[in-house]
Amino acid sequence: MLIGMVFGNGYGSQAGAWRMPGVDPTGFTNFDTLVRYAQLAERGKFQFLFMPDFPALRADIATDAQQLNIEPMMTLAAVARGTERIGLVATGSSTFSEPFNLARQFKALDLMSHGRAGWNAVPTSDPMVAANFGRALPPRFEKYERLHEFVQIVQGLWGSWEQGAWLHDQVSGRFADPAKIKPVNLRGRHLATSGPLPLPPSEQGQPVIFQAGGGDQGLEVAGRYASGVTGAVFTMEDARAQRMALRDAAERAGRDPDEIKFFAGLMTTIAPNRRAALDRRIAMSGFSFEPRVGYLGQMLGLALDSAQLGEPLTKAQLAAARPSRQDLRSTYALKVASEGWSLRDVLAHGVIDYHPMVVGPVVEAADHMQTWFEAGAADGFWLCPDVYEDGLPPLVDDLVPILQERGLFHRDYQGATLRDHLGVPAQYGRDPRLQ
Amino acid sequence: MLIGMVFGNGYGSQAGAWRMPGVDPTGFTNFDTLVRYAQLAERGKFQFLFMPDFPALRADIATDAQQLNIEPMMTLAAVARGTERIGLVATGSSTFSEPFNLARQFKALDLMSHGRAGWNAVPTSDPMVAANFGRALPPRFEKYERLHEFVQIVQGLWGSWEQGAWLHDQVSGRFADPAKIKPVNLRGRHLATSGPLPLPPSEQGQPVIFQAGGGDQGLEVAGRYASGVTGAVFTMEDARAQRMALRDAAERAGRDPDEIKFFAGLMTTIAPNRRAALDRRIAMSGFSFEPRVGYLGQMLGLALDSAQLGEPLTKAQLAAARPSRQDLRSTYALKVASEGWSLRDVLAHGVIDYHPMVVGPVVEAADHMQTWFEAGAADGFWLCPDVYEDGLPPLVDDLVPILQERGLFHRDYQGATLRDHLGVPAQYGRDPRLQ
Ligand SMILES: Cc1cc2nc3c(=O)[nH]c(=O)nc-3n(C[C@H](O)[C@H](O)[C@H](O)COP(=O)(O)O)c2cc1C
Ligand SMILES: Cc1cc2nc3c(=O)[nH]c(=O)nc-3n(C[C@H](O)[C@H](O)[C@H](O)COP(=O)(O)O)c2cc1C
Repeated sequence: MLIGMVFGNGYGSQAGAWRMPGVDPTGFTNFDTLVRYAQLAERGKFQFLFMPDFPALRADIATDAQQLNIEPMMTLAAVARGTERIGLVATGSSTFSEPFNLARQFKALDLMSHGRAGWNAVPTSDPMVAANFGRALPPRFEKYERLHEFVQIVQGLWGSWEQGAWLHDQVSGRFADPAKIKPVNLRGRHLATSGPLPLPPSEQGQPVIFQAGGGDQGLEVAGRYASGVTGAVFTMEDARAQRMALRDAAERAGRDPDEIKFFAGLMTTIAPNRRAALDRRIAMSGFSFEPRVGYLGQMLGLALDSAQLGEPLTKAQLAAARPSRQDLRSTYALKVASEGWSLRDVLAHGVIDYHPMVVGPVVEAADHMQTWFEAGAADGFWLCPDVYEDGLPPLVDDLVPILQERGLFHRDYQGATLRDHLGVPAQYGRDPRLQ
Repeated sequence: MLIGMVFGNGYGSQAGAWRMPGVDPTGFTNFDTLVRYAQLAERGKFQFLFMPDFPALRADIATDAQQLNIEPMMTLAAVARGTERIGLVATGSSTFSEPFNLARQFKALDLMSHGRAGWNAVPTSDPMVAANFGRALPPRFEKYERLHEFVQIVQGLWGSWEQGAWLHDQVSGRFADPAKIKPVNLRGRHLATSGPLPLPPSEQGQPVIFQAGGGDQGLEVAGRYASGVTGAVFTMEDARAQRMALRDAAERAGRDPDEIKFFAGLMTTIAPNRRAALDRRIAMSGFSFEPRVGYLGQMLGLALDSAQLGEPLTKAQLAAARPSRQDLRSTYALKVASEGWSLRDVLAHGVIDYHPMVVGPVVEAADHMQTWFEAGAADGFWLCPDVYEDGLPPLVDDLVPILQERGLFHRDYQGATLRDHLGVPAQYGRDPRLQ
């Protein structure tokens, strides 16, 4: 089982994490704090940190922290210097970047981290981002066409210095072997480059490609190029189906399906018991419960009002409730509601969060991960701790030992590179099977 | 007097620096080494490091190191974490970047360095770079039009969180003051953005703008936006004229000319005496003398042959020599040749290098800097040591104390930010005098 951790704003995955006791309120821009959390994740032997990214201000900023890092590449440069083993995966947009610049920065990260970099290649689907770049979002088809070209150009640039091209031999005075440094000369419909990139290979050859799911066209991209995919899945069945679809896509592209790892998200609020965990969750998201009651009602097929926030569903409501088919989270929401929790507590279970959420003792997280993993629903998980400061230590110090004890998680890093950690082969340039 | 140091490839300014004794041959990608040199410059109280950049492979790579850093922003992120006071100026192209991405990365650098970032805004004039981006260079006029828009959009984004916008007040639960976070909504002929940038101000408000001269249109850009300009000047008269032109341009833009600092380049090869310095210079650039003899001849109005490399000019040649008016370096070249040095030694004086070069004892560098500074030819210098490993320590440990002794250079950093070091005012957003 593989573990990644979402690495965002220096506070944690809950919007109110920044104001919890003991949390550094300046964590958003404090790199001492950011690096410390990365080191903590490394102590837990996590395979990688994962940075989502949308280049825009997307938060209720009066009360909530931006859920994103101030700048993934600069942050990972700092983290690369402050850690030794953990993989470093950042999101970069193929629609709103220049391939040469992106290729160069990720390769630099790969060099400075000694082979620990990964690029989560996303086409970007947020119109707010497009407006920041003075444009409209291109049509979906075009966006993915550009994404394909972008990945191939980036990989071509990464491979423009072959293995062994950089000699730096002071005795002979040979700095590099020009025969092993080749132009790229790729030209697509949207993008082109001549190359070469002025950077040698890293310890893993070049960065790993990740992809964050986006329908059939995203699957196609992932199947061809990705070694890791972070999914948004609410049920084990859905996760299993997505993982299988991904493996099929890899096979269709002529690859071994084991070369591509599927990660299910898991959000955590850990406390000794359920009640304490719910209270913790409520304390860090106090502003956002009322407006969610209406949506909870939709999920359950009931007209609910925020006046009922402190009360459980009535018997009549429970009898009338029908989980919505539109939202896969509804069945779980109804299960929790049937246990008699107040609506606030139902919401505090994370039933309308982005990913499955464990709100309770740490062993519940271990059980969840084991069940999904053994059902073939995931190769690993990307964990989203509520607050790094005191929500990450239980994962590192309690969850990981349980998983190790059960023989599910490695006792230590075996290799040095992200490719080693993921068990995927080294790569130099474009995948020859696709050319 | 202000001092910057060119910070390039981890070896030094001479192409053969990488193979000199004691030099780390992997310095190109070794961030421990890069950070160590930055710390050394900081020990010398230099005001800033300056990173030129051309996103392309531009070196005789079989024997010479690329004269550029693998990636300026990632490197400066590492350096920001490893230093405390020295300013960090990187070059970024307005033709081949997205303003939102560039604004965000420089602002992140400014935050992580606590207000020490600067952006050297260049339009890029190298067709090899353009080809790496799959395009041709735009016409000169258009390139500068885009540069103007680019700088204003970047500054607009930098200012989109006003001073005091970020509250992070855990007691009241107020993360930011939305009234102080404004969209940018700039739209030019080439570029546009909505904004805001999701990053708060730094300790100096926002990064400093630098410009690297490019004719009248570059002067216009510098006059409006720049706080620092790195010039390429061979004679004191030329430097003085360029500095005056720059100050005039600043005044025309409605600014105080003291807000803009002009830096003359100075290359150094330091040794106890001239002969030792020439030998050092020859050892680190042994591959490149023969092909330069012809050009030296052109500078002197003589037909010279590399067979004469070990000999001085004959009496007849000296009598016939006429310095070329095309190349301002020619007068100095003739002066050196008249001293009776062999042609190899004449070249080893750096007479056809990019900047004036001191090849000799450290006091000659101090004298050069004092003379130029007192003549109003420069506000400071950007030093290009031949090799960082053993060519930078004499600047830090010998040159700086001489300048301090003469009352020309500060004894220590007074302020904390790059703006403090340069003596230029804090800034939030676009310059109101230009709007
Ligand atoms: C788990 C997950 C994480 C994602 N992370 C990002 C991200 O960080 N940045 C981004 O721009 N898009 C992200 N996406 C969006 C996808 O890349 C994709 O754009 C989205 O699913 C919409 O698909 P479409 O663009 O094909 O319409 C993510 C998607 C998923 C499922
Ligand atoms: C001292 C100095 C340093 C420069 N450094 C860079 C650089 O690092 N990157 C770059 O693209 N251009 C650099 N330039 C080039 C200028 O920005 C400008 O493009 C060049 O002078 C040509 O002018 P033009 O583009 O107006 O033709 C530098 C110029 C000078 C004088």
